[in-house]
Amino acid sequence: MKKTIAMLPGDGIGKEVMQGAQEVLSVIAEQFGHEFIFTSGLIGGSAIDQRGGPLPAETLELCRNADAIMLGAVGGPKWDREPADNRPERGLLALRKELGLYANIRPVKAYECLTDHSPFKKSVLNGVDFVIVRELTGGLYFGKPSERSGKGGEESAVDTLFYTKEEVRRILAAAFEMAAGRRKKVTSVDKANVLESSRMWRETAEEVKADYPDVELEHMLVDNAAMQLIKNPSQFDVLVTENMFGDILSDEASVLTGSLGMLPSSSLSLNGLHLYEPVHGSAPDIAGKNKANPLAMILSAAMMLRTSFGMEEEAKAVERAVQHVLDAGKRTGDLAFKNDHPLTTAEMIDEIKEGLADDNAILHIMEAYA
Amino acid sequence: MKKTIAMLPGDGIGKEVMQGAQEVLSVIAEQFGHEFIFTSGLIGGSAIDQRGGPLPAETLELCRNADAIMLGAVGGPKWDREPADNRPERGLLALRKELGLYANIRPVKAYECLTDHSPFKKSVLNGVDFVIVRELTGGLYFGKPSERSGKGGEESAVDTLFYTKEEVRRILAAAFEMAAGRRKKVTSVDKANVLESSRMWRETAEEVKADYPDVELEHMLVDNAAMQLIKNPSQFDVLVTENMFGDILSDEASVLTGSLGMLPSSSLSLNGLHLYEPVHGSAPDIAGKNKANPLAMILSAAMMLRTSFGMEEEAKAVERAVQHVLDAGKRTGDLAFKNDHPLTTAEMIDEIKEGLADDNAILHIMEAYA
Ligand SMILES: [Mg+2]
Ligand SMILES: [Mg+2]
Repeated sequence: MKKTIAMLPGDGIGKEVMQGAQEVLSVIAEQFGHEFIFTSGLIGGSAIDQRGGPLPAETLELCRNADAIMLGAVGGPKWDREPADNRPERGLLALRKELGLYANIRPVKAYECLTDHSPFKKSVLNGVDFVIVRELTGGLYFGKPSERSGKGGEESAVDTLFYTKEEVRRILAAAFEMAAGRRKKVTSVDKANVLESSRMWRETAEEVKADYPDVELEHMLVDNAAMQLIKNPSQFDVLVTENMFGDILSDEASVLTGSLGMLPSSSLSLNGLHLYEPVHGSAPDIAGKNKANPLAMILSAAMMLRTSFGMEEEAKAVERAVQHVLDAGKRTGDLAFKNDHPLTTAEMIDEIKEGLADDNAILHIMEAYA
Repeated sequence: MKKTIAMLPGDGIGKEVMQGAQEVLSVIAEQFGHEFIFTSGLIGGSAIDQRGGPLPAETLELCRNADAIMLGAVGGPKWDREPADNRPERGLLALRKELGLYANIRPVKAYECLTDHSPFKKSVLNGVDFVIVRELTGGLYFGKPSERSGKGGEESAVDTLFYTKEEVRRILAAAFEMAAGRRKKVTSVDKANVLESSRMWRETAEEVKADYPDVELEHMLVDNAAMQLIKNPSQFDVLVTENMFGDILSDEASVLTGSLGMLPSSSLSLNGLHLYEPVHGSAPDIAGKNKANPLAMILSAAMMLRTSFGMEEEAKAVERAVQHVLDAGKRTGDLAFKNDHPLTTAEMIDEIKEGLADDNAILHIMEAYA
């Protein structure tokens, strides 16, 4: 298959981990006889520096012409004093809005071999395997007005949590659709005892549920969800939330996996042009030092292979290579213990590529004997 | 000293645990020669049932005439279908607003003897001792508009996050004041990379910091805070947050202590009339079954003795009695392990009262020998 992939490395470690994804995808293309065309665009702080704004028109165009988009990370202290509408994060928010990337999907799975690294007891992590479905283009992060008024003692600020019923319906439908293919349980998170938008959310969840008689629906208040996620995380299958609730809960849930450096995500649009990115940020403190963990970005590439290109075998090959490297005890600094010798970013990328090569060799031998 | 205490048991287990606080306070009054006058008022669902609204005028009046207020818990599935402005929770929200209870204070401390009960590894809980200062009368839970518009496919809903600069300043000042008497570190939580209200919050934090040269100020994004709280909780001293952020983070942080049933809280007003309540809710599933853990309510009474009445010795006596009962392995169902025989609510209350009596006897013997 021939596929065009828009690569937006962004800022900080985004560049380093994107390099890893591209190298791994190139190996996959060779092994499986695909052609991947990589196009590259600026976003975030580097776009502000070089083009004067966080989402240049040419980057948006590049994305529209691609079959899928991969994004590294945006942001850093360098741009903290930029005006509100010219922050690196605005580039990502605008991209989501422009492309209608309304649903963010984050699988949360505890890697057995990383439980020593987790703050949680092993017994809590047993059987943790859920997905957070976060609404991504509405809610508190986008509502208008979002502004300051008055001066001095009279100063005030306002932000707005706004949803149309249709926005709420489509994200809930995405969650039910996902649960139908899994363990058939949706936990809908809201704050219906206080917020009007949450009451509309809860009613809509009940309406969508009617189309999925096999899927169980449970409502959970967001503060309780923040508690349940770490008290008894194996109770969840699919969690669906408003934009900001999802931002908070998914970062909290990431701790269950042992490291942010392991977590891929996808952002889905209705027209099939999806975006894939690691959950971690741009980590300015270690940027350019060859220390970043590229696995979340590489696993995001695997998600892309599966979800956007239907390449299940290729996705599995990448995931197996990651699993083998971890099982062999090889770790970057974020996962290494005190007495380990951590791998550099480049070394970790090489390990994955070698793993893919070995995996491929074994497959060929097995085929020869079949 | 003579003190009038407004007791608002509310709903569910609120009644049972309030009974415990009153009995314990009566023992303290006798032992230390105080006179506590208990007045009792309706709030929440029971007020809806008996008076037609969640905060009757007589309850508000009763509070205004008291030296301090104790509240059990409000809410339950029975009132889930009430209209938005007639929910049990509205009673509590209105009380906070009417009395200017702008700062919610939640100490988070891991009890050594409960770490077996925690989902966290012991190493993570070591040295956890911080306070969450949550803004309580502004932000997303109070802003207007909070309403629905349109019908059918055109339906939408809006909530509003609004703060005056003065509201933000006073909660930040409360946090700095608290930190000055502790380990001198304030972590200010916001979402300044996206929200305008958060940017005003962050600027105001810097301004207030200028009055406290000895106190360190650190800014943390709310999603990162949700992660750091469970990855490395001992880094915190005083966390200060917007209303809804604080709601989510403080319930998350409660898991660090092993049980919600252990956590007291206070809500402070500028004029000195403060409210004390357990962190837990009304737990309708176990209400009236003599199963609830009364310790959070009893520890809230201790907070009241210390903060509102300046009765440090009396507060310590209550806290010692709780510690002794736990050290002796006595637990209610929420803290009991599989093979334990859990105490009932009434039994736990008796244990604390006996502990106070023993403690008092020892103090008298020590005095006699002094
Ligand atoms: Mg986040
Ligand atoms: Mg709460």
